[in-house]
Amino acid sequence: MRILAIGAHPDDVELCCGGTLAKYAGRGDQVTILIATNGNVGSPTLTMKEIADVRYKEAQASADVIGADLIWLNYDDEFLFHNRESRMTFINAIRKANPDVMLVHSNNDYHPDHRICSEISIDCRIPVTVPLIVTEYPAMVKIPHVFMYDNVGGIDFQPEAYVDITDTIQTKAKMLKCHASQDIWLQHMYGSDIVANMVRTSSFRGQGPGVKYAEGFRSLPMFPIPGGAHLLP
Amino acid sequence: MRILAIGAHPDDVELCCGGTLAKYAGRGDQVTILIATNGNVGSPTLTMKEIADVRYKEAQASADVIGADLIWLNYDDEFLFHNRESRMTFINAIRKANPDVMLVHSNNDYHPDHRICSEISIDCRIPVTVPLIVTEYPAMVKIPHVFMYDNVGGIDFQPEAYVDITDTIQTKAKMLKCHASQDIWLQHMYGSDIVANMVRTSSFRGQGPGVKYAEGFRSLPMFPIPGGAHLLP
Amino acid sequence: MRILAIGAHPDDVELCCGGTLAKYAGRGDQVTILIATNGNVGSPTLTMKEIADVRYKEAQASADVIGADLIWLNYDDEFLFHNRESRMTFINAIRKANPDVMLVHSNNDYHPDHRICSEISIDCRIPVTVPLIVTEYPAMVKIPHVFMYDNVGGIDFQPEAYVDITDTIQTKAKMLKCHASQDIWLQHMYGSDIVANMVRTSSFRGQGPGVKYAEGFRSLPMFPIPGGAHLLP
Amino acid sequence: MRILAIGAHPDDVELCCGGTLAKYAGRGDQVTILIATNGNVGSPTLTMKEIADVRYKEAQASADVIGADLIWLNYDDEFLFHNRESRMTFINAIRKANPDVMLVHSNNDYHPDHRICSEISIDCRIPVTVPLIVTEYPAMVKIPHVFMYDNVGGIDFQPEAYVDITDTIQTKAKMLKCHASQDIWLQHMYGSDIVANMVRTSSFRGQGPGVKYAEGFRSLPMFPIPGGAHLLP
Amino acid sequence: MRILAIGAHPDDVELCCGGTLAKYAGRGDQVTILIATNGNVGSPTLTMKEIADVRYKEAQASADVIGADLIWLNYDDEFLFHNRESRMTFINAIRKANPDVMLVHSNNDYHPDHRICSEISIDCRIPVTVPLIVTEYPAMVKIPHVFMYDNVGGIDFQPEAYVDITDTIQTKAKMLKCHASQDIWLQHMYGSDIVANMVRTSSFRGQGPGVKYAEGFRSLPMFPIPGGAHLLP
Amino acid sequence: MRILAIGAHPDDVELCCGGTLAKYAGRGDQVTILIATNGNVGSPTLTMKEIADVRYKEAQASADVIGADLIWLNYDDEFLFHNRESRMTFINAIRKANPDVMLVHSNNDYHPDHRICSEISIDCRIPVTVPLIVTEYPAMVKIPHVFMYDNVGGIDFQPEAYVDITDTIQTKAKMLKCHASQDIWLQHMYGSDIVANMVRTSSFRGQGPGVKYAEGFRSLPMFPIPGGAHLLP
Repeated sequence: MRILAIGAHPDDVELCCGGTLAKYAGRGDQVTILIATNGNVGSPTLTMKEIADVRYKEAQASADVIGADLIWLNYDDEFLFHNRESRMTFINAIRKANPDVMLVHSNNDYHPDHRICSEISIDCRIPVTVPLIVTEYPAMVKIPHVFMYDNVGGIDFQPEAYVDITDTIQTKAKMLKCHASQDIWLQHMYGSDIVANMVRTSSFRGQGPGVKYAEGFRSLPMFPIPGGAHLLP
Repeated sequence: MRILAIGAHPDDVELCCGGTLAKYAGRGDQVTILIATNGNVGSPTLTMKEIADVRYKEAQASADVIGADLIWLNYDDEFLFHNRESRMTFINAIRKANPDVMLVHSNNDYHPDHRICSEISIDCRIPVTVPLIVTEYPAMVKIPHVFMYDNVGGIDFQPEAYVDITDTIQTKAKMLKCHASQDIWLQHMYGSDIVANMVRTSSFRGQGPGVKYAEGFRSLPMFPIPGGAHLLP
Repeated sequence: MRILAIGAHPDDVELCCGGTLAKYAGRGDQVTILIATNGNVGSPTLTMKEIADVRYKEAQASADVIGADLIWLNYDDEFLFHNRESRMTFINAIRKANPDVMLVHSNNDYHPDHRICSEISIDCRIPVTVPLIVTEYPAMVKIPHVFMYDNVGGIDFQPEAYVDITDTIQTKAKMLKCHASQDIWLQHMYGSDIVANMVRTSSFRGQGPGVKYAEGFRSLPMFPIPGGAHLLP
Repeated sequence: MRILAIGAHPDDVELCCGGTLAKYAGRGDQVTILIATNGNVGSPTLTMKEIADVRYKEAQASADVIGADLIWLNYDDEFLFHNRESRMTFINAIRKANPDVMLVHSNNDYHPDHRICSEISIDCRIPVTVPLIVTEYPAMVKIPHVFMYDNVGGIDFQPEAYVDITDTIQTKAKMLKCHASQDIWLQHMYGSDIVANMVRTSSFRGQGPGVKYAEGFRSLPMFPIPGGAHLLP
Repeated sequence: MRILAIGAHPDDVELCCGGTLAKYAGRGDQVTILIATNGNVGSPTLTMKEIADVRYKEAQASADVIGADLIWLNYDDEFLFHNRESRMTFINAIRKANPDVMLVHSNNDYHPDHRICSEISIDCRIPVTVPLIVTEYPAMVKIPHVFMYDNVGGIDFQPEAYVDITDTIQTKAKMLKCHASQDIWLQHMYGSDIVANMVRTSSFRGQGPGVKYAEGFRSLPMFPIPGGAHLLP
Repeated sequence: MRILAIGAHPDDVELCCGGTLAKYAGRGDQVTILIATNGNVGSPTLTMKEIADVRYKEAQASADVIGADLIWLNYDDEFLFHNRESRMTFINAIRKANPDVMLVHSNNDYHPDHRICSEISIDCRIPVTVPLIVTEYPAMVKIPHVFMYDNVGGIDFQPEAYVDITDTIQTKAKMLKCHASQDIWLQHMYGSDIVANMVRTSSFRGQGPGVKYAEGFRSLPMFPIPGGAHLLP
């Protein structure tokens, strides 16, 4: 299968579904990570240009950990909006990855970039298959199945399905550590350690299914419905 | 009464509330069908211009079946957005129809054009009555009552009120068959027959009220509230 | 696997998940049908004793169609309540079937017997595994996974997962026809044809996944969580 | 039409839908008020027997204001439970009134007697029509339509339909004043004036529909569905 | 503390949380009122320019009643949209007020300007603290706590917390009366008296906590969470 | 203040709000722990009588850690039901503790004993103040404020308020370790370590408010409302 994980910022995908991506990759699925914004406000010391460059390299290093492709849309951090331009950009990027399964932020996420990134992504699931919507990459043949992933605080998110990531949490942590600039930033802003936070959530979500570490997912009621929970690894 | 049914695409209104419109028309109410997009991506073979032309003619033919007026906003299919321009265009178009009752997509519909079309329509209910918002047509005197109609898969939609369409389902089917291009398109994309799908949903919704065929509607909690369920036929 | 479908009345299980049971049975799973009440008010002409006898035979005939075991709890129709006696009776009956998967009414079903039957069933999922709760049959070794099935009108029920029953709807209809007394009763009370109603709902639910006929299921958020959607056939 | 309003305590019905009852009665509908408990804990000075007697007389006087029949079930105040005995008692009492429309507490009311009274009432809507469930009064011919009424604080209750009670609020107040013992009791317990509280809520609910005073109602999604919002006066 | 109340139109803040603002101000907190639109459609007789001027003066007079600062964003009434420009404008304005607590419209408010104003405001809570997002005023040091306030009809709004405004309702009324043009407008459009409506809602909300007048508030689940209900006066 | 924490089983209160109880106790509030059932099925080796005795001693030892009073209702584990007897027993027990604040299971908890214990507890909040409801202990003078606490898996529970328990988690762990029999039982049944699970949840809940460990609470919309979130420590 081809898997596309879409995150608003560099490190979102790693934080929220990195263990699942590592599991997909580990069994031979083709994983692509699409990052909407360049994270260009996430530094207490660098300029916007400098931190964006750092974050691109971090994201690439993280993707390399599991052999994933990286799509970098380069929107300004904190200023992603849903309009014709961004919709069209996402359609083209999703077609490039041509996924069977899309993992996206939850549509009720507390962060505006996350929520809007989720909305754009979900709203693309039908248009990506329509031939008369012409972009660089050809129309996809089938509608991808969409799962929404948890957020780092688990805020207002009740999983419907869990993926046991006990075997891949080390890989997840390794990916996350590639985002070294964010560890500095989050320490600076909130006094929190990015890997420690990820472990807290992964450990908590493991309780339901009775495993050491897990990640949680939900689906949206949609139409038509091209798959189901068996698409999770 | 004057009734305005607003759909994102040609055929949406027929699919989801065509039987109710036929019933309104049949008892002498003035029905207008407003279609936001021109359906210009809905073909496997024609150009965007060609399929848009076809769909306009189909929509007109369908409206003619029940003697309804047609308002054609001509937005690009799959690319309806909510901004000042579209809000203003909808305000003017609603004023042209000057409805007592508006039937719109549900605000949680699974399709982006449907959901956004619903949002714009609902957000116009107060502005259409405000004189200092100047458009081609004069401000309306009273706020129209808004019902949200079901979607073809009944996804996440629990009706609050039902309209028995047993006597008008043939008219509904006749309207739908005017959209011949969409039958081709949906067969091509999903292998589904548009009239058959409509009958499946109408038959299912008939079970609750114990009739052969029905359509379901919901209201949104709003303020002020200028009417109620007795406005349904 | 061992599958246990629990219904409040004879014919509930067939109406709401009969196609799925036929599919489980057809692939070799062991299916048990547990019926809480004896249906002893469902006749316009017979005595309570007579109609209860008829319904038991009908239920047995229906179970025989797919080679399912039948557990008959014999509670009075319309008077199922949740108390220590009924909880204990259900624990014992579930242990007898010893299921991997339980299919139960939805916890928000519109009918009191359905809703209460759902509540008792769900509340037994942990106690059935506790050795110090002694009943005729031994404590189960693992907690069964619980799915809630749709209701005949699809009232307030949005499926999370679908089972394609296109290949087993004839078997489902055959099971349902065994409940001939209920066809008479529903014709008498509501003028509705039990098989026709089932087909209406199965056809409607097929639209989402794009098949001819389907049945819909949901899960409840629970703890601990011993399985998932891949347990559906 | 025949209307049955069911309240847990003497004065509940008056507080929450008294204006609507007065309106029904005023246009010639037959109104019955069913009171589940005898209010026998609602006094700071009287014995349980004494206050129950007082409250029965008050309830009778209130019903007389609009020419309503009174059904008095005499359960202990604060100790209404849902079991076979109470279900059977309600079935018989509802059959006595033989209503087209039932007005009941909301199923999520904050007070246990209200919530349980609502649950019993709603769960009787099908059994009241079943001939083999034999009680003193004969089985009803059709399922009554059920509306849930607001609570005095409007807690967690969003009306779907409003009844303008501007013309009957004086009658509503007159009915409420018959419950003089409760004015004493609520002054004693909460320092609140029962008529003043009623006016606060009726005035607030009037804002939505733009009238001086209104009462709000909701429906539950049910099956089958024998009526609709046009049944409100 | 510094308190920022954000309203879509002149008078929204007074109507929905004016008593709470008066209470904050009365105990010495620094209150700022931010008004997004200039109310330039709210007149049956004046031009847009004229009524906007009137409303600015009214808003200033109202703010003066409690010694609050006024921030006037001057967007067109009924045409507030959420885009990069409005997000940036709000970020700057919020930084100017530099609040500990923000009071905003509810995110499910029935009026489009209210709902969109709420969305922009809530989406600014994190960006206002980010130094690389450069505006006229410096980045704030900590994330403000956000409460959503009630709407005038209480539509779909269940308070989680109440503020007793019995002592400040006269001040609230005095503030509201500064908006004399809106009293004319609402009388013209809806026949409703703005102060009377406010009293109706404040009186109703007083019932829950057992006081004469109250205002209700809710929080959104968010992350991170920098405060809590004790921040209300 | 006087605090009453009510749990269905020995160890529930410790697991879900033990840190908050330790904090209340630590600042001088009077804490009472009420345990509904005797935990008499929670052993793989002991008899029901033996394990119940063990659990009583464990509960007493745990309460002693923070100097709390213990009320032991001695219902059979897994068989708590809501009826007149249990309601009356809870009313009397709550009156004995005479709390300002009650901490109870969530009303949507996944475990039947938890859910039913929550329902009984919440339904007692008004009756405990009614003098004519006579029990061993006198009627309380004011309605206690009720908070619902989280569950160990955080299933379907979104906190509205958080208590920082970083300083008391060691005490919480010490209380929990008193329930040594349950560590054996949960290891036997689920292979899970009771203290480790508690730490996982407390750590996770700490993320929102940005502390090391926290516990989450919600309120129910109720009437009347005698307090608020400031009652948490």
